[in-house]
Parts: sequence; C-alpha cells; structure tokens
Amino acid sequence: MVDKPAPDASRRSEKSRRAIYDAALALVGEVGYPKTTVEGIAARAGVGKQTIYRWWSSKADVLLEAFLDLGEQAALAAREAGQGAPRTYALPDTGDLAADLKLVLRATVDELLDPRFEAPSRALAAEGVVNEQLGREFVTKLLEPQLQLYVDRLRAAQDAGHVRPGVDPRIALELFVSPLAQRWLQRTAPISHEYTDTLVDYALHGLAPRDA
Amino acid sequence: MVDKPAPDASRRSEKSRRAIYDAALALVGEVGYPKTTVEGIAARAGVGKQTIYRWWSSKADVLLEAFLDLGEQAALAAREAGQGAPRTYALPDTGDLAADLKLVLRATVDELLDPRFEAPSRALAAEGVVNEQLGREFVTKLLEPQLQLYVDRLRAAQDAGHVRPGVDPRIALELFVSPLAQRWLQRTAPISHEYTDTLVDYALHGLAPRDA
Repeated sequence: MVDKPAPDASRRSEKSRRAIYDAALALVGEVGYPKTTVEGIAARAGVGKQTIYRWWSSKADVLLEAFLDLGEQAALAAREAGQGAPRTYALPDTGDLAADLKLVLRATVDELLDPRFEAPSRALAAEGVVNEQLGREFVTKLLEPQLQLYVDRLRAAQDAGHVRPGVDPRIALELFVSPLAQRWLQRTAPISHEYTDTLVDYALHGLAPRDA
Repeated sequence: MVDKPAPDASRRSEKSRRAIYDAALALVGEVGYPKTTVEGIAARAGVGKQTIYRWWSSKADVLLEAFLDLGEQAALAAREAGQGAPRTYALPDTGDLAADLKLVLRATVDELLDPRFEAPSRALAAEGVVNEQLGREFVTKLLEPQLQLYVDRLRAAQDAGHVRPGVDPRIALELFVSPLAQRWLQRTAPISHEYTDTLVDYALHGLAPRDA
C-alpha cells in the first residue's frame, strides 16, 4: 500500500483557489453562462489556463465548486454572527419547528438579496432552465443537498408529533421553499422576512379553517 | 365622432398570424431568446420582416402574444374536451375548493409536459431570470393574470368559509403553484397529477396535526 496523495484542495494554493472562484462568479454574473470561458476565468484570476485545468475539468465544475464555497462562506459568516447552525450541515432544532424554519428562511432571504450572490446565481439558474445537463448537476450537487436538510428537520418534527405522520417531508418542504424560490427567480413579487414567516404559518396550519 | 378602426387582430390575416406565432415559438425553443430575431421569425413564417413590424414592435412583443395565444388555444382545447372552464377567464367553482384546484393543477401539469409548450416556455423563463425587463413583462402580461384567477377562487372560498379569513390569497396560492413551477423549471423532481393533488391537500389542511 502506498500513501494516499493529499486531497486536491490541500495541494491548491488557497489564494489562487479563492481568486479563481471570485473570477468565475463575477464573470458568469456579468456575461452569463454561455459566454463564460475557462480562458476568461483564468485571465481575470491572473492564473494560467492550465492551472484551472489541473484542478477542474470544465467551467461547469469550477462554477459548481465556487457556489458550494460561497454557500460555505455564508454559513460560516452566519455561525460567527450567531444566526444559528451552518446551513450546510443541519437546520437548527430547538423543538419549535415554526421558529426554526422562520430563522433559516430569513437567512435565505438575506442571502438571495446579497448582491455578491444574486447575479451569479441567476446566471446559473437561468442556464439550468434550458441546459438540462447543467440543470441536473446544479440540482444534484447544490440544491438537493440543501433541501435534504429540510427533510431531516421535518422528519425530526414528525417524530416529535409536530408534523402529521402521513406527510411526505420531501413534498412538504416545497410549500415554503418553492414560493420563495419562484418569487426570487421570476420576480413575481418582493421577498422579505415577513413574507417567509407567513409562508411557514400557512404551510404548518393550512389554509382551511381548523374545523374543516 | 369617427368610426373606430377595426382592432389589430381582425386586420391581420389569421393564417399569417398563426404562422408567425408558430415560427416564433419554435425558434425560441430551438435557439433561445438572445439568438431569436424578427428576421429569423419572418423567414421561418414565410412572411416579410415588415409584416411583423406592422403588427408588433419587437421580438418580445411577438413572443408574449404567441404565448398568450398558446394559452388560449390550450384553454379552448380543454373546454372542448370537457376538462373544466377555460383557464384564461376563471377557475371552476363547484363549491369544492380542493377538487377545483386539483382539476386546474392537473391540467397545468399536462400543459407543462406538452412538448409544444415546453421548449419555448423554458427559453422565455430562462431569459426572464437574467433579463429583468423581459422577466417583468413576462410576469405582468402572462403569469400574474393567471395567478389572479387563483386569487379570485380563493377569495370566493373565503366568502364561503372554506379558507381562513386572515389568509392573504395572493400568498396562499403560492403554496401549490410555486412547488409545481419550481419542479418544472429547475427539474428538482418529477411532476404528476398525484403530486399536485398532494400539494393541494397539504396546503389546505397544513402540515401540523389538527390539534396543534
């Protein structure tokens, strides 16, 4: 047996890696996904094209990793600011489902309104709508892992008797996550903390009267 | 007082109009919004560029009208097939809110899975994500009028005591409309009649137990 090589990340210069992520996110936000190239990212990051190809196989790979990193940075910042557990690992579970969901969705609203996040996210989401392969990769690697955190939280709520036993958590989470996503993506209406609080209340307690 | 001129629509040759709509929808589905041009639409429809500019001021105008027409055609077909009232005027109101919503959402699932509809709709939606002006026009002229039909139906349900008095219908409709939109747009999971039926049940009765 030989020693395992060090993981990719550790062989990369942290500074170059960050510069490449920043360049990729800025570029895709400015010119869109189709016009973003590995050459363009390299030029903007001040590295050679081969440096990028040594670590990633395509512009899609660079971007997906840059987004994962952006999410991790946001989670780290939120943790440091004391705004709950990092979103990438588990949702908070204080035993109060409504309060926990409201906290996380408020943080998501803040993230969606953050200009660093907005343009590149829109560019990638738009490409995913028409480019099925990238769309599926984007969902599998970025979106679905985040949605699974809601599944876990809703399962725990089911165990605690706070969600009806027959409810499918993977569908249930869409009642509050998807409205926010659609308002943001399609600009159908403004988003705010008050709005996501309302979504959580409606989803948990239903639109029909209690005696219906 | 002079006689009003005949409305635009009546002055257009129905055949040319249909050919232009078909060409515009097919082209945007194939090459995307940025590469769709009035010249390309004219060539494909077999009409002169000036014919298009006589009736519409831009490719965005042609496309928005082509989509409105597609929606009207679908509503007409649904009415002829006895699948309820046309979606463009009012949602069915049988007094059974759950049944009415399920009927309409099932028809929407069928429309979203219709290949004639899928490619052009994706192209326009993707462009709307990154192109704020087109996105807002798309929402104002196409999406919001459809959402307002849900507002009307939910208001009627409120009057009948089937929806809680404090609920804002414009937000409430998003609990079942947005999940379907997100699954379709972002391909997060498959869509089906069973799925939209479940959304309606969850939204009306809530995720929390009745005694919570």
